[in-house]
Amino acid sequence: MRFVELIRKKRQGGELSEQELKRLVDAYTTGEVPDYQMSAFLMAVYFKSMTSKELSAWTEAMLHSGQVLDLSSIAGAKIDKHSTGGVGDKVSLILAPLAVAAGLKVPMISGRGLGHTGGTLDKLESIPGFNVNQSVERFIDLVDTLGLGLIGQTGEVAPADKKLYALRDVTATVECIPLIASSIMSKKLAEGIDALILDVKVGSGAFMKNIDRARELAQTMIGIGKAMNRPVRALITDMDQPLGRTIGNSLEVIESIETLRGEGPEDLTEITLELVTEMLDVAGNVTDRDQTKRRLLELLRDGSALGVFEKIIEAQGGDASVCADTSKLPTAKHTTVLEAWEGGHINRIQAESVGIAAMELGAGRRRKEDTIDPAVGLVMEAKRGDKVEPGQPVVTIHYNDDRELDKVKQMLREAIVIGEAPTDVPPLILDRLS
Amino acid sequence: MRFVELIRKKRQGGELSEQELKRLVDAYTTGEVPDYQMSAFLMAVYFKSMTSKELSAWTEAMLHSGQVLDLSSIAGAKIDKHSTGGVGDKVSLILAPLAVAAGLKVPMISGRGLGHTGGTLDKLESIPGFNVNQSVERFIDLVDTLGLGLIGQTGEVAPADKKLYALRDVTATVECIPLIASSIMSKKLAEGIDALILDVKVGSGAFMKNIDRARELAQTMIGIGKAMNRPVRALITDMDQPLGRTIGNSLEVIESIETLRGEGPEDLTEITLELVTEMLDVAGNVTDRDQTKRRLLELLRDGSALGVFEKIIEAQGGDASVCADTSKLPTAKHTTVLEAWEGGHINRIQAESVGIAAMELGAGRRRKEDTIDPAVGLVMEAKRGDKVEPGQPVVTIHYNDDRELDKVKQMLREAIVIGEAPTDVPPLILDRLS
Repeated sequence: MRFVELIRKKRQGGELSEQELKRLVDAYTTGEVPDYQMSAFLMAVYFKSMTSKELSAWTEAMLHSGQVLDLSSIAGAKIDKHSTGGVGDKVSLILAPLAVAAGLKVPMISGRGLGHTGGTLDKLESIPGFNVNQSVERFIDLVDTLGLGLIGQTGEVAPADKKLYALRDVTATVECIPLIASSIMSKKLAEGIDALILDVKVGSGAFMKNIDRARELAQTMIGIGKAMNRPVRALITDMDQPLGRTIGNSLEVIESIETLRGEGPEDLTEITLELVTEMLDVAGNVTDRDQTKRRLLELLRDGSALGVFEKIIEAQGGDASVCADTSKLPTAKHTTVLEAWEGGHINRIQAESVGIAAMELGAGRRRKEDTIDPAVGLVMEAKRGDKVEPGQPVVTIHYNDDRELDKVKQMLREAIVIGEAPTDVPPLILDRLS
Repeated sequence: MRFVELIRKKRQGGELSEQELKRLVDAYTTGEVPDYQMSAFLMAVYFKSMTSKELSAWTEAMLHSGQVLDLSSIAGAKIDKHSTGGVGDKVSLILAPLAVAAGLKVPMISGRGLGHTGGTLDKLESIPGFNVNQSVERFIDLVDTLGLGLIGQTGEVAPADKKLYALRDVTATVECIPLIASSIMSKKLAEGIDALILDVKVGSGAFMKNIDRARELAQTMIGIGKAMNRPVRALITDMDQPLGRTIGNSLEVIESIETLRGEGPEDLTEITLELVTEMLDVAGNVTDRDQTKRRLLELLRDGSALGVFEKIIEAQGGDASVCADTSKLPTAKHTTVLEAWEGGHINRIQAESVGIAAMELGAGRRRKEDTIDPAVGLVMEAKRGDKVEPGQPVVTIHYNDDRELDKVKQMLREAIVIGEAPTDVPPLILDRLS
């Protein structure tokens, strides 16, 4: 097979066969197809897209490029959730224990944060001792015995995706729906799950800036799932302002623990309950959605969900006592309050800018190789729709180093719009697709 | 400068600045930009093209990626011709000596054949001893003293093009007018020429299959020349059937020598005279085109042009006595005649298939690393428009190895269409652009 002919075929808008796509992915994984041929192919895909038939074959080839976990010996419905990423999105930390408390199994392989978005692994690692690097065997064992495992992508699972993602990142081929969809789906389906719930975020802090693109991405992933007989459902949710009140790793763990106690902010609690309800529904365990949500709220309030979180922290080497005493989590040396510079209503909180401000403090990474400071971050003392008086706290900044402080304050002042008139707060759940 | 941002800009259809393009070409030449980023950029250019401003900057950067020859100390007009390539196209071997006999200087850096097309260097190398690998200093000296030099691309001239061409070849980004135009123009302008005449071929044996694309390519190159103050003119010429009667290296040298004696086939003589007239015209040496052509014909008939060819062969280490005795050139062991399988008129000779048939005999290369047999090839005993009786010779096949013979005959039978009715033979010169 001459790989240059496959690039040409895609460039001309032709449809590659299942066999051709499988050969291409396999040969790229082994190194037979060099990066320079794959990057030309990916750019051709950017312009010519893929048919749904091609996309299934491509995703399946990526999925089978490494180990596909076999969880069939584990009883119960194995269901994961994937978020396309945002600012202050700590949902996984609450959702996984809650879903397990509600009877599901959650084999969760997560990623790290980059740029303005955070990552579940970074948040978990702010818990002293927590080890996200577990072997596949240990991971399966954790799912079997505790109902969940919270780990990072290993070289054994979907290596083609790992290699492709790194290449896309440096060749301007990230922003391409079939490539995003196949990357997510190949990783997630390699977990051996029965079904997947997607949280596709839309807005200034999300990868998808408008709802049409978000819907297209969701539909594409649902289509891949359908072709592989894996039910996939998607919620399209608002990411125009940060989710919850905290941005920054340790701060987000604290907020997650509070939410696991039933004391979290309304938006974070609502989205988590909706997503877990969707997970239970796809597993066939829901007859009445409102009743389910009331039951889930009870699992937060009675400590069941937090109990699951404590167990998994302990099992993965972390200090579970942080759940009872969050002051054991890393704390920044200093805090300073950004006060409202005028009175009025919070009309807008530009989530991407807030995410970048947190990154500047050290909570996130500009480049993959950067290290992060788990203690620093931002607490939003006011959210969109809130009324503020002049001098009232708007953001509390947790910092260890004051070098970037003025810049961060300036960024926050520009990101937060205080207006005279109140504005309507859009709903958190914008759409539901299946 | 983050190169991924330049790829993204082009992908989005943006216009890169002169400085950005220069940086990109320079960094690619030194290896700072890896192949995988450049191939993604090239594919984006395939889809989004380049503005004429971008194209000039890109070509200029390629041109200055290596040594730019300075021929300013050499008296007279330094003018080269470039053909986009075809089947049986041995024009350069006749044109260069003829133009020199007519008073021009011709610094000619040529290429090799690939696939169905032949290359000037391969033809020259079928002359025993002829060495196309001359240093730049020696080349300049040859142009100064003999009026011409016939060499291959060196690593010193336009190295960016050499590297880019190799990459395009394996990433399906060859068929892209701005990339073709910049490749040709950067190499040719690095020769230090005053003006350039293009022979843009169109038809089944050419790279451009239709005249609109041929015109677009010609206009693009003329535009680049204009931006760099170098007059460029183009003839669009027919390559729907092979040019002249021979295909194969030694056979084409023999035909070139015959044409240099004034005894060549009509089409080959005509196109050469037209192109040399264009060269003389751009140098300001033409008042009456017909008179010029008569004078050129005289330079063939009186041996002046052949004399120049003999001198350059000798100067580049070859056996110049082949000009007087062509039997000293490599000869195939066997010949066989393909006879007309029916009577009628030759309606069509599919040039690309004839070129591939010659390649199968060993006259050309399937891949760049293949070696060629200088002796083998085809002699077209009948051309488009000729009337043939059943059994009359149509092609003489010169071969050393009979393994591919049946296949070659079959290919020729399919490539040559004998019809009942005579067909109009289209003109050889289809258009003239400046």
